[in-house]
This record gives sequence, structure tokens and C-alpha cells, in this order.
Amino acid sequence: MTKNGQPARRTDWRDNLHAVIFEAETPGGKAFDVLLLIAIVLSLLAVILESVDGIHRAYGDVLIRIEWGFTVLFSIEYVLRVICVRRPSQYVRSFFGIVDLLAVLPTYLVFFIGGTQSFLVIRGIRLFRMFRIFKLARYSSEAEVLVQAIRASRPKIMIFVGGVMTIVVIMGSAMYLIEGPRNGFTDIPSSMYWAIVTMTTVGYGDVVPHTVLGKMIACGIMILGYGMIAVPTGIVSVELAHASRLSISTRTCPSCSREGHDLDALCCRFCGERL
Amino acid sequence: MTKNGQPARRTDWRDNLHAVIFEAETPGGKAFDVLLLIAIVLSLLAVILESVDGIHRAYGDVLIRIEWGFTVLFSIEYVLRVICVRRPSQYVRSFFGIVDLLAVLPTYLVFFIGGTQSFLVIRGIRLFRMFRIFKLARYSSEAEVLVQAIRASRPKIMIFVGGVMTIVVIMGSAMYLIEGPRNGFTDIPSSMYWAIVTMTTVGYGDVVPHTVLGKMIACGIMILGYGMIAVPTGIVSVELAHASRLSISTRTCPSCSREGHDLDALCCRFCGERL
Amino acid sequence: MTKNGQPARRTDWRDNLHAVIFEAETPGGKAFDVLLLIAIVLSLLAVILESVDGIHRAYGDVLIRIEWGFTVLFSIEYVLRVICVRRPSQYVRSFFGIVDLLAVLPTYLVFFIGGTQSFLVIRGIRLFRMFRIFKLARYSSEAEVLVQAIRASRPKIMIFVGGVMTIVVIMGSAMYLIEGPRNGFTDIPSSMYWAIVTMTTVGYGDVVPHTVLGKMIACGIMILGYGMIAVPTGIVSVELAHASRLSISTRTCPSCSREGHDLDALCCRFCGERL
Amino acid sequence: MTKNGQPARRTDWRDNLHAVIFEAETPGGKAFDVLLLIAIVLSLLAVILESVDGIHRAYGDVLIRIEWGFTVLFSIEYVLRVICVRRPSQYVRSFFGIVDLLAVLPTYLVFFIGGTQSFLVIRGIRLFRMFRIFKLARYSSEAEVLVQAIRASRPKIMIFVGGVMTIVVIMGSAMYLIEGPRNGFTDIPSSMYWAIVTMTTVGYGDVVPHTVLGKMIACGIMILGYGMIAVPTGIVSVELAHASRLSISTRTCPSCSREGHDLDALCCRFCGERL
Repeated sequence: MTKNGQPARRTDWRDNLHAVIFEAETPGGKAFDVLLLIAIVLSLLAVILESVDGIHRAYGDVLIRIEWGFTVLFSIEYVLRVICVRRPSQYVRSFFGIVDLLAVLPTYLVFFIGGTQSFLVIRGIRLFRMFRIFKLARYSSEAEVLVQAIRASRPKIMIFVGGVMTIVVIMGSAMYLIEGPRNGFTDIPSSMYWAIVTMTTVGYGDVVPHTVLGKMIACGIMILGYGMIAVPTGIVSVELAHASRLSISTRTCPSCSREGHDLDALCCRFCGERL
Repeated sequence: MTKNGQPARRTDWRDNLHAVIFEAETPGGKAFDVLLLIAIVLSLLAVILESVDGIHRAYGDVLIRIEWGFTVLFSIEYVLRVICVRRPSQYVRSFFGIVDLLAVLPTYLVFFIGGTQSFLVIRGIRLFRMFRIFKLARYSSEAEVLVQAIRASRPKIMIFVGGVMTIVVIMGSAMYLIEGPRNGFTDIPSSMYWAIVTMTTVGYGDVVPHTVLGKMIACGIMILGYGMIAVPTGIVSVELAHASRLSISTRTCPSCSREGHDLDALCCRFCGERL
Repeated sequence: MTKNGQPARRTDWRDNLHAVIFEAETPGGKAFDVLLLIAIVLSLLAVILESVDGIHRAYGDVLIRIEWGFTVLFSIEYVLRVICVRRPSQYVRSFFGIVDLLAVLPTYLVFFIGGTQSFLVIRGIRLFRMFRIFKLARYSSEAEVLVQAIRASRPKIMIFVGGVMTIVVIMGSAMYLIEGPRNGFTDIPSSMYWAIVTMTTVGYGDVVPHTVLGKMIACGIMILGYGMIAVPTGIVSVELAHASRLSISTRTCPSCSREGHDLDALCCRFCGERL
Repeated sequence: MTKNGQPARRTDWRDNLHAVIFEAETPGGKAFDVLLLIAIVLSLLAVILESVDGIHRAYGDVLIRIEWGFTVLFSIEYVLRVICVRRPSQYVRSFFGIVDLLAVLPTYLVFFIGGTQSFLVIRGIRLFRMFRIFKLARYSSEAEVLVQAIRASRPKIMIFVGGVMTIVVIMGSAMYLIEGPRNGFTDIPSSMYWAIVTMTTVGYGDVVPHTVLGKMIACGIMILGYGMIAVPTGIVSVELAHASRLSISTRTCPSCSREGHDLDALCCRFCGERL
């Protein structure tokens, strides 16, 4: 903490607090993480249950008190994080800083603007509490290979989605012409919605072709959607294989100390030194 | 059986019984396996048919007698297994020991607690007989590579399910706000149920978006679910490739000590030395 | 044809006929193949159209005549094949021999047993004509790598289907207990049907859970089915990669003339000779 | 432009125009591309919104004016492309030449043939404007690896679709016989439509089996469809792995002439020589 020649200006309690809140190596840090995890899941559960009509009527008061308890808890957590972090402004503007703030803001907002605003706005703000789920992202440190593979396959996935959308636009327009409003294809947006429902093999069945030509085109879209699922799957498989291969070969070149050599490489691919 | 310096205390009939019941090399052991397999499948069929109203009314008595026949049969099997195994207590507490016990327990339980308990409890206990299907697990010895690959991909799959649940929670909450109770999205749990039905491309069609904004979000979830299926597929593909590669090639050449030989290779493919 | 020391007992016209019917190298053989292909597709189309009520009423007579035309055509083809083939009995009992016979038999059968039998039996026999589609299998010679990969992955796929069936049996029984007959889960077979519909992400929506616990279990089955699709996909991917790798490296050892060497192999993996 | 010994007959403004319209390196070319992209998306949106009844009634006049604006814009673009391209006849007959023409033709056609033709024909022609989406294909230059993999897997995919169609024909016929017209399987085409809906795991639920045997066959088709999705996925995965491997590593080491170097490799990974 005090290396790089910086004087040790931090007090001891701050360093300890930082170890407890931000790290998981010490017993205190581990206990804090487990408690926070439980609190997040319980607070999510409370919001979910509150939306159920019967539960809201029977236990509304209890749920509001629980909600305030979690809000105060997360507020304290937020303040502590701001205090013990080295650069507070950087934390506040980071992804987790914003998520931690959004976890407490809705309850206060609804309290202050209260009954004067329309019900929908309040309900919208209250539902923002569900974003607390992103607080859990802190605990998925193993996701790196996965994220790397998905990021690497993004350009190809984009082109794939572009292809899907092209088919949706063309087929949606064609079905609007063929089936028409009296068979549920009221306009092109509805037809495109149906085309997406069909192509992704979801198949609600709320809109369904009735004419012979419409059914034939629907069959084509289904088989296309059934077969095209192979494309993103293939992309991600290849990228995952590549990413996990990279994560395996963390051999470092003794000369230029660069990583990323294949398992069967004999020489560094950057400087040519024997590995 | 008597190696490691232990005296041969077991009688011959016990050893023979063990070979018949636990092993499949001898003709007797093979015949026992085939008979048990048939008995398990038939007993499962009997429980399934018993639940059909028409069959229960017409052949109820016959089915009860068949049920008792299988119960006595499996009881004898259980007792024989306990007798002939070297460490009975270890078998009783093993996975298959518990499964073998659960295969006979329900019939006895229902017989003893009988008509004094509520119908639902009895039906629940009776359905426990369906767990007999796990007795079949004994015959899938080839599953090793598969289980190994699934186990290896578990941490990544967990993160994937976590990502799916995050989307379900956020999208379920959003749809509850947008569509509202009058379109079937009565509360957040219902909305989350709909989000799972949509994202896994099941698409029952019992709950369906009606507003324009709701349909647009639904399209987004569908395409996301359609594309995201690539992630577990890619994970398992890579792990399976890894697992089957490992099971093939851990042999090392005695001369040049390189790995990567196929199972049927007789000579090193790099230096030609006999393996 | 006359090598291996056998005397050329076949007449010339028989050899020519064999070249036309069984082979595709000569212009006559190619023309025969194309004509047969068209005839098969048209005859399938005729059977399909015959089942449509409106078409049957309007063009029933024409369709019967067309049907007889194709039957006579395929009968002549069958007789010619039997005549020109070297070992007729072997052809008759082969897969294509049986298919070629089944392509003409139904029409004759219906003609002879005629109006004396029940309508259902006749309709069943008539539908057997649809097996003519297997006559098309003759033209998919490129399927080898695919069939090889599917065959290689069969044991693993079997275990996978076994796992799916175990989940279906257990979940079907549980849902029968939880939802019960009043929610459409009338018996265990129905519940198992629902479990299969849900797990394979088909999701008809004809049977749907209504209780909270039922919906929660349904969500579990959906996510399981959504994720488990990765298993067969991974299996087939790995086997296809293996099969196509094998089909690439058709290098033969100069010493023992065995195939199946990897692309980067320097020595034969059977006899150790340098490749 | 003037190499290969051809005299520089083109005027400067033509060369500049070509750089702006066909290329994206210059600032002008980039700006033109962005503007055209926005225009295409907006024109598609206008056609989609026009089909919505409420919007058509309220803003019909505005939409017609917008439509004419885009038509004039795309007409000018088309003329400019013809003028500045070296071989106009080749451009006109190319894929993008036809797409660019189809983007403007429908509006003129409807204007000239006008009210004298039936409504359906006009609507059909108007919907042809949706083909403007193919103008976007110009911007997906990264699709090469993807297209290459899909093209390479086409023969195998064709065989797979053939296999699916065979199952659909046989199962559709069987279900027509088993379920019959009173359960919604009115004829073989309807049964085949149901078989495709089921096998591709779309599962609308508009046609559903009711008999016990029908449900059992349906379960078989579902599990088959669920498992068979592995086949195209495996094919594309392998081809994609092949295509991306090819695009990475066709560089040969000048010293040991071995292949398989990554794109960012500077030195041979086998002998260490500079590439």
C-alpha cells in the first residue's frame, strides 16, 4: 500500500476496513462478503414478493420495514466504501459505484417525491431496486474466459444478427402481404414480431399462419431458424476453444517475457528465442 | 479377494453370490443383470399405468399384486446385496444402497400408515417408487467422459445461468411495469416465469405481450435467448473435446517422451519408436 | 466385370442395362437417375395431394390414374433391376431392394383386398407408398462423414437420452403430484408428455403449470433443457471434428500401407516407418 | 486508375465521385456511407410504419412525401453510381446494381400503374421496397469467414435437411393416419406442417396430438428434433474452426517451411527464424 515512495498517510482502521469490504482473503472480508450476498438476495426477494397482490395486502407493512432496513444497510455499505477507498471519485464513477448507488436511491426517491406523482412513475422507480442484482457481479471473477470469448465473437455475432434481421424484415413483409390483417398479421411490425417468434423457435402460437402459402413460408423460416442456430454456436465454440487454449499456454518467453505461446511451440513467436 | 495378506474368511457361496449380483463377467452375473433390468422397467411401467384413471379402475387389483411382487423381489435383492458385500455399512450408505432401499420402502410405508393419512401424502410416498429409475444408473458405465466434461464445464455453466437469471430478473421486472396485470403479467414472479419461458425458446403462449413496447422487448429477449444458447454449447464442446483428447492421449513415447498418441497407435508418430 | 477369371456369361444388353440403372457415369445412366428422381418426387406429391379433401373430390380420378402410372413405372424399374443385377436374391433382400418393392406393393394390395376391408387398413397401406422417399437415399453418397460421426456418437447420445428420460420420469411424476388432474396433468404419462414438450423447448402450451410450485419446477426443467442441448451438440461436434480430420489424413504408410495418420505425424503409428 | 498502360480518359470529378461513393477511405466517402446508411434505415422504417393502420390514417400524406423524398434520393444515388463507375453495364447487372434499382422502382411503378390495378398487386409492389435492406449488405465486409464456413458446410447441411424432410414426410403421414382430421390433422400437408413445427422445437400449439399413440410419436419427434439440432451445429463448428484456422495460418516459415503461425507471430514457433 505504501510502495512507490508514497508516504503512508492512511490510518490503520481505513486499511483494515478496505481489506474487509473490498477483499476476501481475511476471515473478516469473507464474512462480510457472505453477509452482503445474503442481504442482496433477500432484498431482491422482498421486492419480488411485494409485487404479488396477496402478499402485498397481507404483509405490506412488514415488507416496507424490511425494505428500509436493506436500504439503510446498503447506504452504510456505500458510505463505508467511499470512505475507505483510495480514490473516492474514481469508485463513485465506476460500474460498481453506480450500481451501489442505484441500489439505495429508489427507496429515498419514492419517499421524497411520494404520493404527489403518478403511480406508474413510482412503480418504475421502485423496480429500479431490482438492479441490485448487478451487485452480485462482484462475485463472478471466474467469468473472464467466457467474457473474452463472447467479446471476440461479437463482430461475427453482429453480422449473424444482421442476417437474422434481414430475413425477419423480408419474411415479415411477405407474410403481411400473404396472410393479411384478417389472419392476425395486422401490419408489418406484427408480421416481423411473428417472424422473430418463429425463427428463434419460441413459437408462442398467438399469431399463426392460416393460408397454404403462409404455412409453406412458415416451414421455411422454421427450418432456417432451426439450422441457423448453428452459426452463433459455432462462432462461440471456436472462440471459446481459442480463449481456453490461450489461458492454458501462459508460458512466458525468457527473453522478451511475452505470453500467448501454443503448447507445442518450441520458440517464442515474437523474438524467436528458445522457450 | 484374499490378497493383501487378509485371511480368506468368506465362504464360497458368498463370493459366488457377489460375482452374480455385483459383477457382469460370469454368465450368471449377466443373466442377473438382464433380469433386474427388465424388472426395473416393468415396475416403473406399473407405477405409470396405475396413475391412469381408466386402467386403475379396471386393473387396480392386478397392479397392486404386481407392485407387491416387485417389492418382494427388490427386497430380496437388497438383502442379498447387504449379505454378500464385504462392508455392508458402506454399501448401505452409498448412492446405490440408498436407491435400492428407496425402491422398496414406499410400498411398505403406505401399507403401514395406510388409510389413516391424507391421500396426498400417500400418493407422494407412492410416487417415490419412481426413483427406481436410478437403479438403471448402474448400467451406464460409459458415461465417464460425458460426466467428466459436464463437471469440468460446471463453473462456466454456473456463471452462464447467473447471467440468464440476471436478464430474467431485470426483464421480468421491466415487463411487469410495461405490460401490467391486465395483460397477464400479474406480478414479478409471473413476469420472470414468462421471461424464462421466452428466453429458453419454450414459448408456451399462455402469457404473451400485448403492448408495442412489450413486444419489442420480447423480441430482444428471444434473439438473446436464441443466440445465448451458443454459450453452454460452446463450453461443453470445448470441455468434451478436451476430455476425449485426454482419454485418448496420455501415453508418452519412451524414446522421445512426446505425448498425443491415439489409443490404437503402436509406434510413436514422431520418432517411430515402439510404444 | 469379367476379371477374377470368371467367364463373361452375361449378354451385352444386360451389362449396358446395369450401367444405365445402377451407375451414373454414362449419359444414359445420368438421364435415368434424373428421370427417376423426378418420378419419385412427383409420386410423393400425388400421395400428399390425394389426402387433401378438396383436391381428392375434384381430381380423384386423375390422381388414381397418375398413381397407377407411377406404380407401373416403378414395377418395370424393379423388374429391370432384378434382371440386370448379378445376384438377384442379394438385391431383393438388400435395403434398396425392399424399398423398391414397398414402393409398388401398396397400390396392388389395395387393388386386390379392395373394398372388403375396413377403410383404416386401406388408408394405412396406401400411406406406405410414402416410404418411396427412401428411394432418394440412393442419391446422398456424400453423407458418409455425417453418418460416421453420428454412429461414433451413438453410445454417448444414448446415455444422454437416458439422462433426459430419467429427468422426464422424475419431473413428470412430481408435476402429477403437484399440479394434479384439475390442471391438465391427468396422469403420469400426460405429465411425462408435458415434461418432454417442455424440456425439448417445443412448448405447445396445451398443458401448462398453474400452481406456484409447478411453475418453479417448470422453470427448472426449461433452464435444464435449454442448457442440456449443449451435450448432444458437443458430442456431435467433437465426433465430426474427429471424422473430418480422419477423412483429411488419408496418407498411407509406405511400409504397412495402413491409413489414419494425423497431418503432423512424421512416422507411421503402426509400424514406425517414416512417412 | 491509369496503370496497365490505359490512357487517363476519365475526368477528375469522376474519379473523385467514385472515391466518395464506392470507397470509404476518404472523409467524404465515410460521410457519404454514414448518410446513406441512415437514409436506408429511415426509409425501411417509413415503409414499416405505413403498414400500421392508425399511423397510415393519421400521417398518410407525410409518409408519401417522405417516401418520394427517399425515392428521389436513391434515384440520384443510382444515377451517380452508373456515371462514375468504369463499366456501367457490369455494375447494372451486379447484385448491388439490381438491389439499387429495386430500391427505387416500386414507387415509380405504383405511381404509373396507379389505381387501375388491384389493391393486392400494388401492395405487393410497394412491399418490394423492403428489399432496400440488402443495400446494407455493402457494409458487412467482415462476413467473409462466416460465409466461407457456411458455404463449406452446405453439402452436409443439404443432406441434413434431406434427413429432416424424410422424417417429416414419414411422421406426417403416420400422424395423419393415427390422429386423423377430427384432431386437426386434416390432411398430409397439415400433418407435415405440424411435424416441422414440432421437430424444429417451435411448437405453436395450434395443432396438437390427442391420442395416446399420437402423443408417443410426438415425443419421439421432439426428442429427435432436440437431439438433431446437434448435427448442423457440429457441421458449422467444424467448418468455422477450419475456416478461421485457415485464415490465420497459411504463412510458411522461410527457414523450416512449416505452417501454423498466428497472425501476430513475428518469428517461427518451431525454429525461431524471423517470418
